Amino acid sequence: MVHDAVIIVAGGKGLRMGGEVPKQFLPVRGVPVLMRTIETFKRWNAEVEVVVVLPVEHQDYWRALCHRHSFGTPHIVADGGATRFHSVLSGLSHLPSDGLIGVHDGVRPFVSAEVIARCYAAAAEHGAAVPVIPVHETVRRLAADGGSVTVPRDDYRLVQTPQVFDAALLHAAYACDYNPSFTDDASVVEAYGHAVHLVEGNRENIKLTTPFDMIVAEALL
Amino acid sequence: MVHDAVIIVAGGKGLRMGGEVPKQFLPVRGVPVLMRTIETFKRWNAEVEVVVVLPVEHQDYWRALCHRHSFGTPHIVADGGATRFHSVLSGLSHLPSDGLIGVHDGVRPFVSAEVIARCYAAAAEHGAAVPVIPVHETVRRLAADGGSVTVPRDDYRLVQTPQVFDAALLHAAYACDYNPSFTDDASVVEAYGHAVHLVEGNRENIKLTTPFDMIVAEALL
Repeated sequence: MVHDAVIIVAGGKGLRMGGEVPKQFLPVRGVPVLMRTIETFKRWNAEVEVVVVLPVEHQDYWRALCHRHSFGTPHIVADGGATRFHSVLSGLSHLPSDGLIGVHDGVRPFVSAEVIARCYAAAAEHGAAVPVIPVHETVRRLAADGGSVTVPRDDYRLVQTPQVFDAALLHAAYACDYNPSFTDDASVVEAYGHAVHLVEGNRENIKLTTPFDMIVAEALL
Repeated sequence: MVHDAVIIVAGGKGLRMGGEVPKQFLPVRGVPVLMRTIETFKRWNAEVEVVVVLPVEHQDYWRALCHRHSFGTPHIVADGGATRFHSVLSGLSHLPSDGLIGVHDGVRPFVSAEVIARCYAAAAEHGAAVPVIPVHETVRRLAADGGSVTVPRDDYRLVQTPQVFDAALLHAAYACDYNPSFTDDASVVEAYGHAVHLVEGNRENIKLTTPFDMIVAEALL
């Protein structure tokens, strides 16, 4: 049987005296976002191994939150790094090189079980898979001269997570040096020379980053 | 004083026996979307002239809806065309060539008064202005070979409405022949040779096109 794992990256900044509480710790209908995200993966596959990457300075807060909510779902806590690349690398150090590893944003609790299943199935076949959705709006590209032009939106896709990979491939790709052009996990694997397969995401799988997103989140439940 | 007008395009299909009711006629917290959109513009400027473009087969339904909701805000109803281009052209035929004309989606009731004001002010200065927002997600462009590549998302913007223009310019631009590459009103004006100025939109200014969007709309109020 294939070993499925997921690295859930929850690196949001802001947990300081007087600062905002990062969105992954905020409750949606009473339950913190990060717990909802973990549970979403456990509902898809109760056996999935979960690694949560958290900045060191957030880990006590998270443990207290788990205690307060009697959250007993087993998961490994890994130390966050300076960038997403370094955070994923930290999470990877807890996982073996066999099976499949997904990388997911801690603030995306609304990924559907169908999309998770689709990503892992496509990664098993192609080595690397990411969920995408079409762009509904007209898209413009900014030009160097300060102007802008409309581009054909059908040629573009918005990328979500989980981005899922063959574990050996992901370990090999992350053995490279960090490059600021790494915008997501797929870009690291592509830089290593492996093509990424696109699968259909779900529109509700939004990244909770603004107060507006939190209102939407409440409504989605 | 400048004559401000807005053409509100409500061309959504689907009002047939057994078909879905188009989103512009659906209630959000009891009030149909299209009425909310009209009221948003009237709150910005009580003097704005409103032209609503509706397919001929929807006009009786709309009039009955206005009667049922005691909706007395004055507006001209223009006949919808086969494409957005033809619908806007139909709306334009009711408006003079002086002042400013905005073109707005009937299913965008959540544009802020600040964004409307910003668009009209920028159009007064530059002739053509559209509101845009940054892209939060990673963006991929599909390639001809079936693959895809990540593109720098900071170079891209998502386009909203109202798209606002000098009235004489808009009339002149729409005197051209229809071209399927016209994806929005700005593209018609650009094809005529006039550059479009970008201003900051508001993230809540979503286009209500899916059941998910209607849930978000309820939450936004």
